[in-house]
Amino acid sequence: MTELVTFGETMLRLSPPDDERLETADQYTVRAAGAESNVAVAAQRLGLDAMWTSKLPDSPVGRRVTGELKHHGVSVDIAWDDADTARQGTYYLEQGSPPRGNEVIYDRRNASVTTATPEELPTETIENATGFHTSGITPALSETLESTTTDLLSLAQDAGTTTSLDLNYRSKLWTPAEARSVLTELFPAVDVLVVAERDANVVLDRDGDTEAVARDLADEYGFEVTVITRGSEGALALADGAVVEQPTFEATDDHPVGTGDSFVGGFLSQYLSGGSVSDGLAWGAATAALKRSIPGDIAVVSPDEIRSILSGDTEAISR
Amino acid sequence: MTELVTFGETMLRLSPPDDERLETADQYTVRAAGAESNVAVAAQRLGLDAMWTSKLPDSPVGRRVTGELKHHGVSVDIAWDDADTARQGTYYLEQGSPPRGNEVIYDRRNASVTTATPEELPTETIENATGFHTSGITPALSETLESTTTDLLSLAQDAGTTTSLDLNYRSKLWTPAEARSVLTELFPAVDVLVVAERDANVVLDRDGDTEAVARDLADEYGFEVTVITRGSEGALALADGAVVEQPTFEATDDHPVGTGDSFVGGFLSQYLSGGSVSDGLAWGAATAALKRSIPGDIAVVSPDEIRSILSGDTEAISR
Amino acid sequence: MTELVTFGETMLRLSPPDDERLETADQYTVRAAGAESNVAVAAQRLGLDAMWTSKLPDSPVGRRVTGELKHHGVSVDIAWDDADTARQGTYYLEQGSPPRGNEVIYDRRNASVTTATPEELPTETIENATGFHTSGITPALSETLESTTTDLLSLAQDAGTTTSLDLNYRSKLWTPAEARSVLTELFPAVDVLVVAERDANVVLDRDGDTEAVARDLADEYGFEVTVITRGSEGALALADGAVVEQPTFEATDDHPVGTGDSFVGGFLSQYLSGGSVSDGLAWGAATAALKRSIPGDIAVVSPDEIRSILSGDTEAISR
Amino acid sequence: MTELVTFGETMLRLSPPDDERLETADQYTVRAAGAESNVAVAAQRLGLDAMWTSKLPDSPVGRRVTGELKHHGVSVDIAWDDADTARQGTYYLEQGSPPRGNEVIYDRRNASVTTATPEELPTETIENATGFHTSGITPALSETLESTTTDLLSLAQDAGTTTSLDLNYRSKLWTPAEARSVLTELFPAVDVLVVAERDANVVLDRDGDTEAVARDLADEYGFEVTVITRGSEGALALADGAVVEQPTFEATDDHPVGTGDSFVGGFLSQYLSGGSVSDGLAWGAATAALKRSIPGDIAVVSPDEIRSILSGDTEAISR
Amino acid sequence: MTELVTFGETMLRLSPPDDERLETADQYTVRAAGAESNVAVAAQRLGLDAMWTSKLPDSPVGRRVTGELKHHGVSVDIAWDDADTARQGTYYLEQGSPPRGNEVIYDRRNASVTTATPEELPTETIENATGFHTSGITPALSETLESTTTDLLSLAQDAGTTTSLDLNYRSKLWTPAEARSVLTELFPAVDVLVVAERDANVVLDRDGDTEAVARDLADEYGFEVTVITRGSEGALALADGAVVEQPTFEATDDHPVGTGDSFVGGFLSQYLSGGSVSDGLAWGAATAALKRSIPGDIAVVSPDEIRSILSGDTEAISR
Amino acid sequence: MTELVTFGETMLRLSPPDDERLETADQYTVRAAGAESNVAVAAQRLGLDAMWTSKLPDSPVGRRVTGELKHHGVSVDIAWDDADTARQGTYYLEQGSPPRGNEVIYDRRNASVTTATPEELPTETIENATGFHTSGITPALSETLESTTTDLLSLAQDAGTTTSLDLNYRSKLWTPAEARSVLTELFPAVDVLVVAERDANVVLDRDGDTEAVARDLADEYGFEVTVITRGSEGALALADGAVVEQPTFEATDDHPVGTGDSFVGGFLSQYLSGGSVSDGLAWGAATAALKRSIPGDIAVVSPDEIRSILSGDTEAISR
Repeated sequence: MTELVTFGETMLRLSPPDDERLETADQYTVRAAGAESNVAVAAQRLGLDAMWTSKLPDSPVGRRVTGELKHHGVSVDIAWDDADTARQGTYYLEQGSPPRGNEVIYDRRNASVTTATPEELPTETIENATGFHTSGITPALSETLESTTTDLLSLAQDAGTTTSLDLNYRSKLWTPAEARSVLTELFPAVDVLVVAERDANVVLDRDGDTEAVARDLADEYGFEVTVITRGSEGALALADGAVVEQPTFEATDDHPVGTGDSFVGGFLSQYLSGGSVSDGLAWGAATAALKRSIPGDIAVVSPDEIRSILSGDTEAISR
Repeated sequence: MTELVTFGETMLRLSPPDDERLETADQYTVRAAGAESNVAVAAQRLGLDAMWTSKLPDSPVGRRVTGELKHHGVSVDIAWDDADTARQGTYYLEQGSPPRGNEVIYDRRNASVTTATPEELPTETIENATGFHTSGITPALSETLESTTTDLLSLAQDAGTTTSLDLNYRSKLWTPAEARSVLTELFPAVDVLVVAERDANVVLDRDGDTEAVARDLADEYGFEVTVITRGSEGALALADGAVVEQPTFEATDDHPVGTGDSFVGGFLSQYLSGGSVSDGLAWGAATAALKRSIPGDIAVVSPDEIRSILSGDTEAISR
Repeated sequence: MTELVTFGETMLRLSPPDDERLETADQYTVRAAGAESNVAVAAQRLGLDAMWTSKLPDSPVGRRVTGELKHHGVSVDIAWDDADTARQGTYYLEQGSPPRGNEVIYDRRNASVTTATPEELPTETIENATGFHTSGITPALSETLESTTTDLLSLAQDAGTTTSLDLNYRSKLWTPAEARSVLTELFPAVDVLVVAERDANVVLDRDGDTEAVARDLADEYGFEVTVITRGSEGALALADGAVVEQPTFEATDDHPVGTGDSFVGGFLSQYLSGGSVSDGLAWGAATAALKRSIPGDIAVVSPDEIRSILSGDTEAISR
Repeated sequence: MTELVTFGETMLRLSPPDDERLETADQYTVRAAGAESNVAVAAQRLGLDAMWTSKLPDSPVGRRVTGELKHHGVSVDIAWDDADTARQGTYYLEQGSPPRGNEVIYDRRNASVTTATPEELPTETIENATGFHTSGITPALSETLESTTTDLLSLAQDAGTTTSLDLNYRSKLWTPAEARSVLTELFPAVDVLVVAERDANVVLDRDGDTEAVARDLADEYGFEVTVITRGSEGALALADGAVVEQPTFEATDDHPVGTGDSFVGGFLSQYLSGGSVSDGLAWGAATAALKRSIPGDIAVVSPDEIRSILSGDTEAISR
Repeated sequence: MTELVTFGETMLRLSPPDDERLETADQYTVRAAGAESNVAVAAQRLGLDAMWTSKLPDSPVGRRVTGELKHHGVSVDIAWDDADTARQGTYYLEQGSPPRGNEVIYDRRNASVTTATPEELPTETIENATGFHTSGITPALSETLESTTTDLLSLAQDAGTTTSLDLNYRSKLWTPAEARSVLTELFPAVDVLVVAERDANVVLDRDGDTEAVARDLADEYGFEVTVITRGSEGALALADGAVVEQPTFEATDDHPVGTGDSFVGGFLSQYLSGGSVSDGLAWGAATAALKRSIPGDIAVVSPDEIRSILSGDTEAISR
Repeated sequence: MTELVTFGETMLRLSPPDDERLETADQYTVRAAGAESNVAVAAQRLGLDAMWTSKLPDSPVGRRVTGELKHHGVSVDIAWDDADTARQGTYYLEQGSPPRGNEVIYDRRNASVTTATPEELPTETIENATGFHTSGITPALSETLESTTTDLLSLAQDAGTTTSLDLNYRSKLWTPAEARSVLTELFPAVDVLVVAERDANVVLDRDGDTEAVARDLADEYGFEVTVITRGSEGALALADGAVVEQPTFEATDDHPVGTGDSFVGGFLSQYLSGGSVSDGLAWGAATAALKRSIPGDIAVVSPDEIRSILSGDTEAISR
């Protein structure tokens, strides 16, 4: 049985190898990359039976995306779109060391997923799942998706499926005001909110100390669990009025992309299988830390690795 | 002084290396690829002072395109588009050996170039050039481009610039009927037509032997030169009522993409610098043959290499 | 529901890139490679719901194998073995052009799979499937596997599952006499036999024309379908006393490894879903031909591609 | 109009990939590398119309050099040398982490450029340019080049072109005494001197604090601007008797090769287009910092990137 | 004349490139890797005439191992084993940054070397050499090797060859108790013991300060030289009752694998050619430091590089 | 004991990968390449104890050359030259398919070897060897080498060492007349001459049928064996007045570079170890055929492979 369904866009990510620049490279590394599929992969690898659902062009490029996800054991339920008219969303990512920042160029407009409606998606599977997850990116992609996201969260919640949303504000997609307006409409149908403290400030207009922000949001929107992530300062969760804090684990800075999604995947792997919020935060933090040592968007991790981080036992080389 | 200006779309071409498939490859090779820029590069490398003009997003990806063309000495005059809203056209190309055909997946809809208007382009340079070249792909890309192509051909011809058009029918962009309707409207402003015999049949509805087709087209549209290409059977040109034939040179079948554009570039390198139609065909055929041994879309050739093919002197290894 | 279950060993295949030699290469390309998983992938990609079952070390290397198969949509049901004591079978493959032959170095002794017993494998799934497939390689790998193969074929056949065996004689594993002795013991539990004419001669000691060999084998062992493959001369099948012949499709010789498995996968994709023997042979031949253009052991194909080969419509480049 | 002309040798740089050693690598990465062409590229990319002039063998290898420079928009004016007798200068560069230093093996003796005379070079373009730049490497390469450098600096200065020299002492080419003797002869024709503090000590025999060194040099040789670079401690410039100081920007240490040339290119991009010495230093420092994150010798940068460093706004990932 | 003979297993090491994971990589980098051949290469490169002896399958894969060692000038004397039945030991190594540790998966059971007997090996060369070296890994690999190691150490010592053993405890091969029992049996035939302080604690059950451990071991087993390595804290040697200490040299942490073997190779290069224990430690420490900047298991170093580290003179780039 | 010593230049060969061009490639593949070292490697791998002697710069680049040769078991005796003043010869090789020929750009002038004198070389080893080999390239490289070659051939022949010379005319190094004048001076000291029929015509001015040319040369210069190679038509040898002919073996055309050297290495492996001229030709032809399937200059072959070609037994894949 599918325990977790995630919904959102997965793009083809094109990156120059090593430290090369997009402008001069002759090869781009290709990877599947999407906030919700990243969550599904992390959760699946850590023990949940996870599915990712979306809409893709029925082409080798669309299958390039699903193939990479299926490699990790995630099920996919795809509304396959006409390959002649639909397009695969892509993005160009160039990683840089200081003072060069990372460069992100989206080419995701009019991607297949932007026309996805609930009728095309496995709503029954969602209703029967333990959890349903999406991110604040999805409703930003099109009006259709705003409506689809609303419908899916509602039908999931109505069916008793735990709904979670990672706010994930993207300034290249919309303004804080636009995001706030749309996302707060979704909140009533969200059981678990994950939000970066910075996004809570900028998008949701909350200030003050982290706990206060969490309490404030939980009070206003009635979240079952409110998780605030604070970058290198760890995460804080509020559930049933109680606060749990989780520091980060020491980790390299080599591959930061996907850290947040890995956190969510690790959290859900525990929370949706009956673990405590505290377990969820710990697994989230350990998965996020491990991800930072792994190229690409995806947390290629195993439960044993997470456990060994949690137990503080990470030897350099064990021959 | 710029002798040849070409106008059209140049895409980023993404191809899996070796014989791998798009669906399973983890690296794509990146190249600039566009019919008209291919022509400009070939012509430039063979001695003309060539410019390619177009519209591109002002981003590393757009500059990836111009950088590769400038490498070969082509000048570029670009209407730089807003990087946040404009997109770079791309296409996926997978080369296959029999029975696997080549797979082409266009992702060029809404590319920057589709909104290019004459006002944004170097019309004065075109008017002062010896030749202006575009292909039948360009007007197929958008209504704006249909109009822009018409205007540019007309203003060029009016200014005494020799205009050339490679018909280049693309079934993924429009039907034969659509193509015929649009292209025949352009023909009065075209001095040199290059058309594959198959396209003459399918799009222009001409049958019969090649010479008859050429005479028929020349009669109806008043072309200064009418060149019919016949794949492995070589090319035929009609000019001033006289017919010239040119067989192909023996060549590998390893890298066929771009053969036609190389032919046109070779032809124009001679014809626009005062060479005879016969010289043009010979240089076209030799450039096309050489291209087939070179990966990518672009004819990385030199005049000496063309001359040694024409003189029949291609030694295996000269140590 | 799983329609086809295949059982056997999948190795990690290590090959030098390009035409390099094993002795001097500094990189080896890594791929999952096994006769039965090759069949499962081809069948899955062509429409069956296929599963591969086996025993593997519970390590990143074992998961390297399952991950690549799952990419193609195949389900896996694995008896995971202790990573500290079990090993992953590997083989080194160096491809050569004449007069250099291909070099194969097996390192598969004591691989996890050699200890697999029916108790560890999904016998219920096999009993509920439409087809169960293995090859003559499997019983050659260990005495345990000889017994396991016997048991699985019998329990499948008893449950009404169509059983198929690709004889696949490997001279590096056993002598013709050893193979004959073991395999003919299995034949009563086999419904569909696929055998290369050369193996029929060398291992099964049958001579004469192909049809006679097929009739002889079918008579003696009561196969439902007897398929004899004849390399470049195509294949012949005998079913219900009727003979069907299928020529090969023209194909490159670039990537011959896996041709036979692709044939079987193509055949089963039709035969097990109710297609005729004739359809099976046609799909088998087309899949085999397409495989020869694709690197690795696995037929990365789609039904549309097979159909276009069968309809004779394979264009070079369709732009 | 060409605003900046630079003159000097550009070599083909051959480097093992990753951290491999020259002795054991099977692939070398190939790049164009030359102090003066590095300056031209940086300046061109930052807004100047720059040309690089030199002498090269008329071969694919010589064109490999010009092609890479033209990619970045630099114009080239080359005295093409006979490919059968001339040679392309090369150098082997192996980058190492501590305690392994970088290994540099020059193979530049008798390179084409060593015979370049003013007659072969675009003296008129130099005379009409805003700036002319070379380095202390050039006169070290041959007696002919010593004379050519002298002549070009003089004719430039006489024509009102601002001349600049980066002292760039290379211990593998000459002794400090030889360098001093030749370079101080050139100084009267130099308007802008850039010199590392260490070279000022070792070659020019100046001690004391940086400002004193600058004043001392300016007094003796009458430089319009005297720039002293001090590695991680930033740079100091003396112009019109006033001192400007510029600290470095924080930067990775991954790709230090070319830092100095990038500084000069950044400086000239401002100074030659009418910016203040202070602007020049700031752009120089920012370009140098950015270069350190970019592989190869060349600063693949854009004005926007420099501006964002200068404004202190370099976000990690802006999605 | 051969000065140093080392004996042990050399495996083929298979590693994913960059930071990729074994589970997802499509290419593995291939290298020869073995404690004793690592020592032989380092010693040879630093001036000794070194030989490595072992048993390998007579196959391209076995020759892959010897070829890489011979590249560095090491002589090899191999008992070539039947390629059809013998196997090449391999191991998978995945390097990770924190919190990801390095992952090592041995696949060395039943490798050819496990059956090596003194009769197959160049005992005469060992008897005539200055030094004979092996490690505590070798006797752990099989009972035959336990016996062979014992015999070789004894016959070497009897012939006046200086014998050295690097204890090198591998927890994946045996328990501390097993190791202690076997290794202490070998100690009487060992002249020079090298042991990590941690292994002295865990395997040999020695506590207390390093010097006390060294004195204790020397007293009990009569070692000529007892070297205790202490990771980043350097090494300590006891010889003739005197203690010498050697700190480590500052070095990158990029390529730590093989550091210990490089230390031993550096030590022996001096000690066996008449250098002092103090010289040995210094060269050992410098070689180990340099190794950490070099990919793979092998110290690709030169005497000049070691000398420049010892003299404290390692410039970044000397152009 | 060294059985064969070869003397000549070995260059570093730099080639673009796949079918790329020198002008546009960003990576060059690096290989050791020299006629005489190619012969030494082939002979060594086929059973002779071979040494290559030459002069090289004492640098990582020089050691890159010797390391690759030593990998194959060849001994090297090198006059190491001062790395600061000496240079490593290189050449650029671009392989092309028709109509593109192979492009060779030598950069070997003033390479270390051009100053090699007999005093620097292992003359004693040559005198004690069974055979000494060089090619007609060596005396073409410098006057010093002309003299050194003369001296070495003479002292070898005087000592009873069989001397062989592969004429190997290189039009980029000298004219036919120059070559004839120098080489015929060497002939008296040559026991075995190998010459391509084309070179016999162009350089030695011999016409007529192959046998007549051989007899004519043998008569005039008193060769012990005269071998004429005729490309795809095989080879002919004259020894003791008797003629032996050897056809070529069918082989791919993928990697033709080094075919001739492989032939010589194969020939000498037999002839110098007491085999007949006929055996020599057969091994030469088989080695040459096999080489054509192997990238690079070097015949990475084994005696078993040669024997299986000679026995006509080259199976495609033996699993």
